[in-house]
Amino acid sequence: MMTSEDEIILHSQRLAHVREWCAERNACFIALDSFAIRWLTGFTGSNGIVYLDPDCQVLFTDSRYAEQAPVEIARHGVDVKCEIALDPFNSIARLSRKRDVHLDGEKCSWSTKEKIESLIEGKVINAHKFCQELRCIKDNSEIVKIRTAAEITCMALDSALAELNAETTERELARNIESLMIKHGALNAAYPPIVAAGTNSALPHASPSNQRICDTNLLLVDVGANYEGYCSDMTRMIPLSKLTQEQEYASQMVLDAQTKAIEAIRPGIKAKEIDGICRDAISNVIPGGEFLHGTGHGVGLEIHEYPSINSRSDDILREGMVITVEPGIYIQGSYGVRWEDLLLVTDSGVEYLTNYEKRIQVLDSNG
Amino acid sequence: MMTSEDEIILHSQRLAHVREWCAERNACFIALDSFAIRWLTGFTGSNGIVYLDPDCQVLFTDSRYAEQAPVEIARHGVDVKCEIALDPFNSIARLSRKRDVHLDGEKCSWSTKEKIESLIEGKVINAHKFCQELRCIKDNSEIVKIRTAAEITCMALDSALAELNAETTERELARNIESLMIKHGALNAAYPPIVAAGTNSALPHASPSNQRICDTNLLLVDVGANYEGYCSDMTRMIPLSKLTQEQEYASQMVLDAQTKAIEAIRPGIKAKEIDGICRDAISNVIPGGEFLHGTGHGVGLEIHEYPSINSRSDDILREGMVITVEPGIYIQGSYGVRWEDLLLVTDSGVEYLTNYEKRIQVLDSNG
Repeated sequence: MMTSEDEIILHSQRLAHVREWCAERNACFIALDSFAIRWLTGFTGSNGIVYLDPDCQVLFTDSRYAEQAPVEIARHGVDVKCEIALDPFNSIARLSRKRDVHLDGEKCSWSTKEKIESLIEGKVINAHKFCQELRCIKDNSEIVKIRTAAEITCMALDSALAELNAETTERELARNIESLMIKHGALNAAYPPIVAAGTNSALPHASPSNQRICDTNLLLVDVGANYEGYCSDMTRMIPLSKLTQEQEYASQMVLDAQTKAIEAIRPGIKAKEIDGICRDAISNVIPGGEFLHGTGHGVGLEIHEYPSINSRSDDILREGMVITVEPGIYIQGSYGVRWEDLLLVTDSGVEYLTNYEKRIQVLDSNG
Repeated sequence: MMTSEDEIILHSQRLAHVREWCAERNACFIALDSFAIRWLTGFTGSNGIVYLDPDCQVLFTDSRYAEQAPVEIARHGVDVKCEIALDPFNSIARLSRKRDVHLDGEKCSWSTKEKIESLIEGKVINAHKFCQELRCIKDNSEIVKIRTAAEITCMALDSALAELNAETTERELARNIESLMIKHGALNAAYPPIVAAGTNSALPHASPSNQRICDTNLLLVDVGANYEGYCSDMTRMIPLSKLTQEQEYASQMVLDAQTKAIEAIRPGIKAKEIDGICRDAISNVIPGGEFLHGTGHGVGLEIHEYPSINSRSDDILREGMVITVEPGIYIQGSYGVRWEDLLLVTDSGVEYLTNYEKRIQVLDSNG
C-alpha cells in the first residue's frame, strides 16, 4: 500500500495541531482508541496509546507490534517515538509531570480513567468535544478513500445482485457482497451487511437469515466497504416482483423525503433541520408505519462518527463533512423501506459518494 | 435458529443469579456491553442496557430493535420487560431509587459513568471482578457452541488449504477461509484471520498482504469462527516446502512447550504457572528469537475473556473454563512460529476443542 506525499504531510499536520492545542493549555493529550491512533500516526494495531504534549510525541504499544509499529509510523512520515510497554501509564505519568491529561471520555473506560488519575499529578480532563471535531472535516486523502470504499460497495452490490437466483438466501447474498467487496480491494465490510427480504425488512437492523430472497417481493440491502480503514454506508430497496400499491407508495415517499432533505444540505445548516425535513415528509402517512431511527450520521474511520443527524442534535453541518441521509419507514410484521446515501458536504450543497441506481418498482410492471 | 429447552432455563438462571447478588447488597446492576446483554437475555442488538435489581429486570433499547428485542427475549424464555427509550438513564435513576448501581468499569465509558452518577441517588460501583467471573465457567450450551465454532474452523482451514495454488495470496487465503467458515454455518470470522507467509510470520499480528504464499516456505494461520455468538481460536504452522534446520527446530520447540504447558493444566493451577512453563521452554534458545506475547486467554462470546494466562496474571484455572494456549517465537525480519489450541478445562485436565493436525515438516522431506 503506497502512502502519498500528501498523506505524509497530513499526519504530521494532525499531530502538530493537537500539540499546539496542548501548548495553549500547557497540557497533555492521550489517544486511547484505535481510530484516533490511526488518524494521528498511521499505526493500525489493535492496542496502543498515543501520548502528546508540547515537547514530545510517543506511541506506546505492546511487543506484538514491535516490528509493525515503527514501520507504519515511518511510512506515514511522522516523527513519533515508539515505545514497547506492558503498562504505559507509569511512563505517561512521568512524561506529563504536573500537567493535566486530556482524553476522550467516551473512548476511555471508567477503570482506565481511574488508573490514570491515580498515577498522574495533574487532573484527567474529558476532551470529548475536541476529539469529535478533530476528525469531522475530511481532508482530500480521506475523501479519496471514502469515495473508493463507496465505489467498491456499488460494484460489489451490482455483481452480487446479478448472480441472484431462486435459491439465494439473505445470508448467502450478504456473504457474496462481502466477498466481492474484498475482491474489489476492500479490507472487509465496514459493518455486517443487512440483507433483509420481505417481512424481515421491517426490522431496521435485521441479521441476514436463511430466508430465500426471491420468495419475497422486496429486498433491503444496507452495506458498506472498508477501504484502507475508511468506511462507506449505503442502503437500497430492490423490488423483486411487483410491489403492492402501499409498498410502492411508501418507497416513493421515503425516497422523496430523502431527496428533499439532501437538497437542503449546505454548510451552516443545523443537522436537526435535515432530520425535521425527513420526519415531516414521512410521519403518519401509512397506518402503523414508523420512522424508527435518526436521519443520519458522520462516516469516516468509524462507521458512526460526529455529527449526528437527529431531532435532538445540536450539530451544524460543515463543508468537508461526510454524512449519511437515511430516512426509513417500518410497518411491523409487514415490510420496511429505507434509502440511504453517503454524501460529501461541499461549499454549496452535497456531492453524492454513493452512485447506485434507485428503482421503486420492477421494470416489467412499469413497462 | 432453535433455542433448546436447556438454554431457556440457563438464561433465566443467569438473570436470577445476578438478581440474588443484587438482593444480598440491596443494590442494582446494569449491563452496558453487548456481550453481557446477550449472555443475560439473548438479545443480540448493537445497542441496549440491561437493568436488574431484586424486584425487576428491564432491557432498554432503541426503536430500531422494537420488533427484534421482544422476539429474542421470548425465544430465550426470559421474563424481561423490554422498554424502548432514547435516553434510558432517567428511567434507571427512577428504578434504582436510593440504591447503588453496580456496573463493569472496563465496559463503561468514563462519560457514561459520569452521566449515571449525576442522575442516581446512590453511588456507581465498579463490579468488574464480578462481571469477569460471571461468564468464565461455560455451561453445556456454551461449550456446544464453542466446540462447533472450532469444528467449523478446522473444516474451513482444511478446504481452503486444499485449494491453495501457486498464485494464492495471504489476502485471498484469508478471504477463502472466512467464506468457507460462513458456508459451514458460522456467522462470520471471530476476528480478522491472520494469514502470514514467510517473513510476515515474524509479525505476531500481521495483516494479510498480497504476498504470494507459495513463494515462501512456511505459513502461519491464526483463525477462528463465530458460531451463534461464540468464538473459536486456533493457530497452525503450515510447512510449504522444506523448512530450514533452525525453522524446524523452532517449530518443534514451540510445539513441545505448548504440549508441556497443556499437560500441566488442571483445575486449581495458577495461570502464570502455565505461562512460566512455556516461557522456560522457549527463552534464549534461538538467537534474536523472542516470545512476544502472553501464553493465552479465555474465549467465549468475546475472543479475549477472563482468565489471562501471562506472567503477571493472578487468575486460577477452573473446570469449565475455555482457554487458549499459544506460545510463539518471533525472529525479527526472518520468520515466526506460533502453535495455538482451544481447550476446555475438565475435572482432571483438558479436552482439546481444536482437533487439527500439527505437522512440523513437509511430508516429502521426511519420507
